[in-house]
Amino acid sequence: MTRAAILLIAFPLLTAAQDISGEWEFTAHRMGMDTYARVTLKTESDKLTGSLNELKFEGTVHGNTIDFIARRPNGDKFGTFHGTLQAGELSGDAVWLEKEKLTWSAHRSVPRPASPTVHDFEPTQFHRLFSGSIPPVMRIFPGDTVRTWTVDAGGFDKHGERRSMGGNPETGPFYIEGAFPGDTLVIKLVKVRLNRDTAESGGEISSNAVTPDYVHDAKYDEKFNSEWKLDREKGIAMLAKPTARLKNYTVKLQPMLGCMAVAPPAMQSFRTGQLGSFGGNMDYNQMREGATVYLPVYQPGAIFFLGDGHAAQGDGELTGDALETSMDVEFTVDIVKGYSTDGPRAENDDYVMSMGIAGSPGEAMQQATAQLASWLEKDYKLTANESAVLLGTALRYDIAEVVDPMYHVVAKVSKSALAALK
Amino acid sequence: MTRAAILLIAFPLLTAAQDISGEWEFTAHRMGMDTYARVTLKTESDKLTGSLNELKFEGTVHGNTIDFIARRPNGDKFGTFHGTLQAGELSGDAVWLEKEKLTWSAHRSVPRPASPTVHDFEPTQFHRLFSGSIPPVMRIFPGDTVRTWTVDAGGFDKHGERRSMGGNPETGPFYIEGAFPGDTLVIKLVKVRLNRDTAESGGEISSNAVTPDYVHDAKYDEKFNSEWKLDREKGIAMLAKPTARLKNYTVKLQPMLGCMAVAPPAMQSFRTGQLGSFGGNMDYNQMREGATVYLPVYQPGAIFFLGDGHAAQGDGELTGDALETSMDVEFTVDIVKGYSTDGPRAENDDYVMSMGIAGSPGEAMQQATAQLASWLEKDYKLTANESAVLLGTALRYDIAEVVDPMYHVVAKVSKSALAALK
Amino acid sequence: MTRAAILLIAFPLLTAAQDISGEWEFTAHRMGMDTYARVTLKTESDKLTGSLNELKFEGTVHGNTIDFIARRPNGDKFGTFHGTLQAGELSGDAVWLEKEKLTWSAHRSVPRPASPTVHDFEPTQFHRLFSGSIPPVMRIFPGDTVRTWTVDAGGFDKHGERRSMGGNPETGPFYIEGAFPGDTLVIKLVKVRLNRDTAESGGEISSNAVTPDYVHDAKYDEKFNSEWKLDREKGIAMLAKPTARLKNYTVKLQPMLGCMAVAPPAMQSFRTGQLGSFGGNMDYNQMREGATVYLPVYQPGAIFFLGDGHAAQGDGELTGDALETSMDVEFTVDIVKGYSTDGPRAENDDYVMSMGIAGSPGEAMQQATAQLASWLEKDYKLTANESAVLLGTALRYDIAEVVDPMYHVVAKVSKSALAALK
Amino acid sequence: MTRAAILLIAFPLLTAAQDISGEWEFTAHRMGMDTYARVTLKTESDKLTGSLNELKFEGTVHGNTIDFIARRPNGDKFGTFHGTLQAGELSGDAVWLEKEKLTWSAHRSVPRPASPTVHDFEPTQFHRLFSGSIPPVMRIFPGDTVRTWTVDAGGFDKHGERRSMGGNPETGPFYIEGAFPGDTLVIKLVKVRLNRDTAESGGEISSNAVTPDYVHDAKYDEKFNSEWKLDREKGIAMLAKPTARLKNYTVKLQPMLGCMAVAPPAMQSFRTGQLGSFGGNMDYNQMREGATVYLPVYQPGAIFFLGDGHAAQGDGELTGDALETSMDVEFTVDIVKGYSTDGPRAENDDYVMSMGIAGSPGEAMQQATAQLASWLEKDYKLTANESAVLLGTALRYDIAEVVDPMYHVVAKVSKSALAALK
Repeated sequence: MTRAAILLIAFPLLTAAQDISGEWEFTAHRMGMDTYARVTLKTESDKLTGSLNELKFEGTVHGNTIDFIARRPNGDKFGTFHGTLQAGELSGDAVWLEKEKLTWSAHRSVPRPASPTVHDFEPTQFHRLFSGSIPPVMRIFPGDTVRTWTVDAGGFDKHGERRSMGGNPETGPFYIEGAFPGDTLVIKLVKVRLNRDTAESGGEISSNAVTPDYVHDAKYDEKFNSEWKLDREKGIAMLAKPTARLKNYTVKLQPMLGCMAVAPPAMQSFRTGQLGSFGGNMDYNQMREGATVYLPVYQPGAIFFLGDGHAAQGDGELTGDALETSMDVEFTVDIVKGYSTDGPRAENDDYVMSMGIAGSPGEAMQQATAQLASWLEKDYKLTANESAVLLGTALRYDIAEVVDPMYHVVAKVSKSALAALK
Repeated sequence: MTRAAILLIAFPLLTAAQDISGEWEFTAHRMGMDTYARVTLKTESDKLTGSLNELKFEGTVHGNTIDFIARRPNGDKFGTFHGTLQAGELSGDAVWLEKEKLTWSAHRSVPRPASPTVHDFEPTQFHRLFSGSIPPVMRIFPGDTVRTWTVDAGGFDKHGERRSMGGNPETGPFYIEGAFPGDTLVIKLVKVRLNRDTAESGGEISSNAVTPDYVHDAKYDEKFNSEWKLDREKGIAMLAKPTARLKNYTVKLQPMLGCMAVAPPAMQSFRTGQLGSFGGNMDYNQMREGATVYLPVYQPGAIFFLGDGHAAQGDGELTGDALETSMDVEFTVDIVKGYSTDGPRAENDDYVMSMGIAGSPGEAMQQATAQLASWLEKDYKLTANESAVLLGTALRYDIAEVVDPMYHVVAKVSKSALAALK
Repeated sequence: MTRAAILLIAFPLLTAAQDISGEWEFTAHRMGMDTYARVTLKTESDKLTGSLNELKFEGTVHGNTIDFIARRPNGDKFGTFHGTLQAGELSGDAVWLEKEKLTWSAHRSVPRPASPTVHDFEPTQFHRLFSGSIPPVMRIFPGDTVRTWTVDAGGFDKHGERRSMGGNPETGPFYIEGAFPGDTLVIKLVKVRLNRDTAESGGEISSNAVTPDYVHDAKYDEKFNSEWKLDREKGIAMLAKPTARLKNYTVKLQPMLGCMAVAPPAMQSFRTGQLGSFGGNMDYNQMREGATVYLPVYQPGAIFFLGDGHAAQGDGELTGDALETSMDVEFTVDIVKGYSTDGPRAENDDYVMSMGIAGSPGEAMQQATAQLASWLEKDYKLTANESAVLLGTALRYDIAEVVDPMYHVVAKVSKSALAALK
Repeated sequence: MTRAAILLIAFPLLTAAQDISGEWEFTAHRMGMDTYARVTLKTESDKLTGSLNELKFEGTVHGNTIDFIARRPNGDKFGTFHGTLQAGELSGDAVWLEKEKLTWSAHRSVPRPASPTVHDFEPTQFHRLFSGSIPPVMRIFPGDTVRTWTVDAGGFDKHGERRSMGGNPETGPFYIEGAFPGDTLVIKLVKVRLNRDTAESGGEISSNAVTPDYVHDAKYDEKFNSEWKLDREKGIAMLAKPTARLKNYTVKLQPMLGCMAVAPPAMQSFRTGQLGSFGGNMDYNQMREGATVYLPVYQPGAIFFLGDGHAAQGDGELTGDALETSMDVEFTVDIVKGYSTDGPRAENDDYVMSMGIAGSPGEAMQQATAQLASWLEKDYKLTANESAVLLGTALRYDIAEVVDPMYHVVAKVSKSALAALK
């Protein structure tokens, strides 16, 4: 066969213009930096049109080659692109603003399977960094469910065996097919269940949570025993070796996950005590079975981590930890395409919640409030005044934790208040 | 009659040493500063003993004249006192630490009447300063109840008549007999009831409560109408002239008092927007009917103010105010003698609460936590470790308000958690 | 003589319309609240015109009676005034916005004397409240100079005699003729001189100024002696009874005033440890001889206090105090009419300074920066961008103190940088 | 040859016990976590002794095999070690606390060469992460000097050529031989020199640095031109296209480095806008030619980065950047073995400085103060009281920057004050 004939057979559809119509996940590579965007292309005979955020494309398709110009909304030329389709992937180069050069590639989103899968995942390794450079343990699709388990913050599993060094070792990470920067990852906590009868907590209030005078005066006994016994049948925890005063003191079991995270932005890696817009060690006692958490996607696949189960936790996580224990977890993933927020959000049966994570309680509160207001204005089409009177009357704050490297304050509003807006 | 005979009749008991036994409210006057303490005196024939805080007294009584020396616990001489009893009041002078001179006076606590009184008080004047120099409207006894009413934050009464200039004008102040510096004033809110069908709130979120970016971007309409209609029968509020999006939005009526205060320490006067250890404009939405608030007494009589009723309020008092309205209020007063805390505390059916009031949300949180921990340690005889594990598991925070001159964060713990300690 | 004739003689000029032309200091009295403004009146035969801030007056003069209507810039009627001139003072009543009633009075500014006076003031009483209700010790005119002295923060004078209880007892207050709310009081520190050879400081770092861990670990000896010897000839201070390590440690004497204040706004009274927009216990080590401080006037006469001299002070006033000592002070007063800022400002030979005083170091810094930027924009006619590049390159911060009830951060810019703008 | 003979030849020195005496850099490997310590070993015939921090070793050497037990100061057994010497490196395994297993390795410090080297380094790649996983460009020894250059914060070099994407791209990293966790890296800035005549800054004050009201009201012109011209001869900068008001405004050139960093702790990677205990984007305008910076070493080799040159910068870096430009830099490195602080420190001719880097200005100030106090107490053998009176009188604060992800406040004390302690 001639070379041309081989090409025709090998890429039988490449000449058909409609081949590249549709949505592509586009990555610009430039001096070691990757920038992401979803691109829509459309071909009509040899004409190519498309868009990337607010930019509009116009150009041509010839065989497996495309050429187009990107223009701003006002018609100004922004860049010139050249590309080739090979093995279902587009790649090429571009000139930006007359002078800046880059290469680029694009692939189509993997389609969501017809029916979701339930995966059982038995972890063998646990990670002490939130990092997009850790190879995923599994690739799963939106709609899929994972059944797995987590070690406690110190690295011990349900048998009390050390499986990792301490510091919130994480299960995962999971690669979610189709999750792309600019999307939101949705994690529904289907089950968060205790799998052993012991937990451990600190026995001193973290110095961040009290006044310097209290710090100065507190007389702590370093040998105080703060191991807990978990009675899963009765749904309560009690100190394993209580002092006389605390002999009858019990805590209601309300299992929660301290950590849920995606890969942090800009290829950063944080230790698993950290928290931020990527989630992380949020230590919020409402992250229980039935809750759904929303995290911004910063890297293809989102790269989801979970860990740090607490059998119960007061507000603020005062002792620097809670009733730390291992956990059986079942979660379902989904993605919201092309919609993303500045930070974590969540909901449960009663509330929608906005997580403010910042360097001081005040900034965390401001962030939580502003995000909740912006969210209402965007999702419910409220004006600033309308969201002001709604939040002025319906907002509730939770101080999630005050003992980690960043402070975490949650602003929330009841779903019943929002129901009136629909 | 001879002059001596007259004296004997006029002061028939003065020569009997037992006359001055018992508790006295003692005030030291020195260079314009008054210092207060409860003093216990005991006489046995012409011997006088007594105590003032940790100081011990020893001296003599001759007729209506007393002389004694005050010593520290270690026996060191602290001061020399001389005094006279006249018309039931002691007064005299003293030398402190060999050189510092002062005058002093003491009177007996007014005894609590056999049965409490219910007072109806119709206010005619309203005060825009929390100040111990405002003459009290009424002297009441511990155990007494007052039925009165408050104007709204703008000065309008239940008929919509202006009764004062705005800025949280207060009803009172009330002088509580027997309340003495170092005591705690107890105010039980028996009734906090709406007395009209209208309220007003702001329509913009205070810039303190959101990020600078939100402040920068928010597009407020200054003409937005945020008047409210209160439907006392249905127990709901709705905007008087709602926008289309908020047509069905209703708020549950939960009447509360924004302000309760005693005279501030050190003879200071604060405008009624202020808050601090003396209470004041605390704007906490749990200060509702049924709640009890505890305030430290800084001045004889405590000098109690109340006002700033809210028909309902979200956490944080985001719009800088809540559903501001006038209110019918019934409260019962009591005092806890010789016990005082660094700031306001409260309780209701479910929780005991410690109010942290400070210049930043973080310091307010630290103060609330430390006060709650100290309170538990003092009142429930917990060690620091015990209060740490209790609060680590049972503490809940409320962010009361973030829009006043000081921030207010509440740390609370459920009574059911504390029940296990008894 | 007839009664009319007597009146004509007694008030020979009252019928002459020009009598009331000119500037008046106007006070509205309403439900116990006084509001101040400067009013300009002008008469032409029996026509009266005038202005109060943005309001315009039009009306008539008949004998000693005036009647006028106040209108907003858009012509809307704002209020109706009636008044009478008696003994050189105007007074009357008004109806505001159709329904709100008030009474008012106005008097002319006292004219500044032809030549300034130097007053020697020997204080006998010292005040532990910044309060506009304390009777002034002296009425002085803009341009006048006062030579006086202050006791130290503990109340001791240059002979070591106790003259007051402690807590920053103040000299004054001084009533400045013509100072009116909305003006700025100008205090030039002509002399700030030590008048004794001893000072006292704390020997522990305030817990606000260090981390909780440092507070927890620091091992302080409560008996550490931190009395200082001041060698005025050599211009240095040294510990009176130094430890071996500090035997050669000396501090340069840089006498300063910790407190300068006007009467606080809204008739409030603060203890003399407080600071705020009214100045107060600012504890800034640049408030030395040669400095000029600008304070907003909140009450007629301004009511100026001074005290709390420091022989030297590090940034932050770390030990909760500095080298506390008594001081001889000479200051000259002036006023800037109709110009006022949100808080204290100052200048010396090198810098113009804006004082940020707030509940956290962050808010104090923000306030100082914003005030300095606004000041530059207002006084030097800079745009926001121009002040941004100027401050981005020329701003310097000082952390004045971190140990008082409010934090104090100063933003300053050199006069040489500003010289280029003239 | 016998097997023994072969061994003797192959490892001719292994049997000599003195071989392994001396200092080793020891790394424990456990479940993916490396822990570092310097270990001292000593052999006498077949007896082995040694120490690792507070642990004491006792054991034996046989051929190339060592076995020893580590005990706590109180004699309790802590762990059992077994190891082998091969090719000059020790490695083996250990059991910790009866049950925890680990492997370990140790090598000797590379000795410092007899005379230092001056390296010229021409960078070709620039890094936008502070990360210990980036391969070093060069291995240098303590005492060595590097002459190199940095691009500006946007990635442009001295010719205005783009060499990297923006965001503080860094030169390096450099591996410093012998730098080991627990040490301090010392960087002396020998030269920090401008290498072009242009710089760029922002033209708006960052919203963090001003009040929300200022943010709300500021009217910025987005087209404001804030390019700068650098006149290296005159030593001044001026706006390239100044507005009329700023026509004569000049800024003194004071070239500085915004970024100096070691690899962050715990294998974290931060973008080069971040700062923390590892240094990073500290943006402190005293980091100029002649300054020496001290950074804690978290990873073998320290892994040193530098970049983000500023031609001049006001305190706070108000516009979110300074006069950003490329720079020629010459620095000398050194290490302080076995001494490390919690965060960056520095010194120049006049001051020793402690850098407080935290989530709020208040915490940054507290950290800076506490570190400076601790440093004085440790290095100058001061008691807490002595450092309190020294800092109370001699401390100066600089607010380095308020616009990065963390706030940076510097506490400093003059060398002349410290000279008296020697």
